[in-house]
Amino acid sequence: MEDRSIQVNLCTSRKEKPKSDELQFGRTFTDHMFVMDYSEPAGWHDPRIVPYQKLEIDPSAMVFHYGQSVFEGLKAYKTSAGEPQLFRPEKNLKRINHSNDRLCIPQIEEEFALRAIQQLVELEKDWIPEAKGTSLYIRPFVISTEPYIGVAPSRHYKFMIILSPVGQYYKEGINPVKIAVENQYVRTVRGGTGEAKTGGNYAASLKAQELVSDSGFAQVLWLDGVEKKYIEEVGSMNVFFKIDGEIVTPALNGSILEGVTRNSVIALLNHWNIPVNERRISMEELRQAHKDGLLEEAFGSGTAAVISPIGQLTWEGEDMQVNNFTTGPVAKKLYDTLTGIQYGRVEDPFNWIVPVGSQVYSKAQ
Amino acid sequence: MEDRSIQVNLCTSRKEKPKSDELQFGRTFTDHMFVMDYSEPAGWHDPRIVPYQKLEIDPSAMVFHYGQSVFEGLKAYKTSAGEPQLFRPEKNLKRINHSNDRLCIPQIEEEFALRAIQQLVELEKDWIPEAKGTSLYIRPFVISTEPYIGVAPSRHYKFMIILSPVGQYYKEGINPVKIAVENQYVRTVRGGTGEAKTGGNYAASLKAQELVSDSGFAQVLWLDGVEKKYIEEVGSMNVFFKIDGEIVTPALNGSILEGVTRNSVIALLNHWNIPVNERRISMEELRQAHKDGLLEEAFGSGTAAVISPIGQLTWEGEDMQVNNFTTGPVAKKLYDTLTGIQYGRVEDPFNWIVPVGSQVYSKAQ
Ligand SMILES: Cc1ncc(COP(=O)(O)O)c(C=O)c1O
Ligand SMILES: Cc1ncc(COP(=O)(O)O)c(C=O)c1O
Repeated sequence: MEDRSIQVNLCTSRKEKPKSDELQFGRTFTDHMFVMDYSEPAGWHDPRIVPYQKLEIDPSAMVFHYGQSVFEGLKAYKTSAGEPQLFRPEKNLKRINHSNDRLCIPQIEEEFALRAIQQLVELEKDWIPEAKGTSLYIRPFVISTEPYIGVAPSRHYKFMIILSPVGQYYKEGINPVKIAVENQYVRTVRGGTGEAKTGGNYAASLKAQELVSDSGFAQVLWLDGVEKKYIEEVGSMNVFFKIDGEIVTPALNGSILEGVTRNSVIALLNHWNIPVNERRISMEELRQAHKDGLLEEAFGSGTAAVISPIGQLTWEGEDMQVNNFTTGPVAKKLYDTLTGIQYGRVEDPFNWIVPVGSQVYSKAQ
Repeated sequence: MEDRSIQVNLCTSRKEKPKSDELQFGRTFTDHMFVMDYSEPAGWHDPRIVPYQKLEIDPSAMVFHYGQSVFEGLKAYKTSAGEPQLFRPEKNLKRINHSNDRLCIPQIEEEFALRAIQQLVELEKDWIPEAKGTSLYIRPFVISTEPYIGVAPSRHYKFMIILSPVGQYYKEGINPVKIAVENQYVRTVRGGTGEAKTGGNYAASLKAQELVSDSGFAQVLWLDGVEKKYIEEVGSMNVFFKIDGEIVTPALNGSILEGVTRNSVIALLNHWNIPVNERRISMEELRQAHKDGLLEEAFGSGTAAVISPIGQLTWEGEDMQVNNFTTGPVAKKLYDTLTGIQYGRVEDPFNWIVPVGSQVYSKAQ
């Protein structure tokens, strides 16, 4: 696949770009998209960049019925010199293949997929907004397209990449949010698909989110599906706590999505000689820590919001304020450093940045 | 919505119908389909029957990313007099709304949806095959179509009905199959989406199925997601056992799909004065019953296969044969009676049959 070239078919008229201060998350898409098809025995074939357009899909396409799909989410950032760059894209491509494996979707060549992202972003670089906190969200995804309504892995797929210029995920930016601890619904469970980035996990999460959002909660905090005791994630983010001076985060247990931001947070904290303890954390422990005045910080981590401080956790009717509903120093430093690296404002000690024009797989991994 | 009419746009040329002996499950679709759109504030609108055709959908449509979708499956059967009839369609429409609720999809008016099914099947009645065991599979489904990549309930949906002439689900017909008890993967869990008929449950099930099918197993038997001890379902069917003369089936616990066939099996058995015990059943109990020679029958129940006898269960390397790998008398009687009712060959003591031309919601429920 190394020297397979991507066919390019440019659109004839460009769309108008939204103004920086009018950007919403995930509602505007750029002029072009990447598409590649899978069928047997050809495998993945016909990679192409084409005008952004509607898909023509049979109503019996398996994705509509049996949910066989995976996706990724990463961003392109513009440096002050106007150079577009990516943040650890290899991680997302590794993860899409991990998701593919769980969902019985054929593997995608990661090096080639990165080239596809780079070529598409390069073509669309005028779409990367420049105002503070804005970026170009990159959504690679795979859908099963075989026209067959039987429960079995599809034999046809489409791998696509679409791009969306985005503002901050939370209008509040780095301001703390209120989180409801979810006792009834679960997102997923050990042995399920939680480790994979697949539609069904998000579909399952909507109800809980809907029930609490009227009461002003930004997200729910998910407990484990087995005992409903242990903390897993917060909304679509991984979660960290600072308890009595120590940073803790739920250990990867098979039902938690391994976030690229989570991994980066741990690396940065270690780099700063702040140890991170990955282990089981129960809500009861958290409540006790709060009662004892030892719950110093809580924050979510994810590509969309980067770092999202938790100002309040509500569990079984009890409101637990964290750090007086203000952003704590660890969350703040992580946010500044991560966004600093992403926008090229601060040093990149781990070689995380991939300029859109570079060949990443020749770089030391 | 009572007197809202369905607009009909007929196709100009009809497809060729497959021969009865060439029917496969779910690969051929009829000439027309039903479509209805949802948006706010209009609600469900523009119900129409149109030529079966590809959908034009934005690549950012939520169903491709966040799996917000539900579906149903029922069949139209042709009586020996050539009359098309449905089996308990109200149950499927009730269930689609139960699924809709879990998935944050707006409710569909059940009476109207039944009229849509009836009108579509009436139009396509020449597509109902007549050979023994064949039928017209009816697939109502809802997909989320809003072009928005953010995790939230969609504000646009399509409700569609497509039809597929089908042969027997298992080529083996009512012959017993081998089933592998799944210890690693789970389909869903209490608090998840197991009670709903939504794509993600089926996507989650593919991997386990794929791993065992090479070894000749037709399906996996799912254990509960919490303790991995208790029996839930077998493949996409509910499951029954006869242990020491008593019929047992897993109680509905929130993670089991309530099958229309399951409900009908229980009603028939009760009608025959055979009590059914709905309770928790552990694999350990089943193993012990098998060891003691008390596991007399095991079978799955579902629309696709009706009744599917289990000839062998394999758990932790141990093969347990059931009834010498032959169809037991209870399974046989249920299969004969259910299919007899469905095809109009035997009396319908419960008023389950709905002729395609009748007004079901005026009939006593
Ligand atoms: C369920 C879930 N957990 C965690 C994350 C955070 O992952 P990342 O840091 O790679 O964005 C995401 C978002 O991608 C997610 O969807
Ligand atoms: C998971 C699951 N369980 C059970 C069933 C059986 O339900 P029914 O008898 O309504 O077909 C089905 C099939 O519809 C199913 O998908």
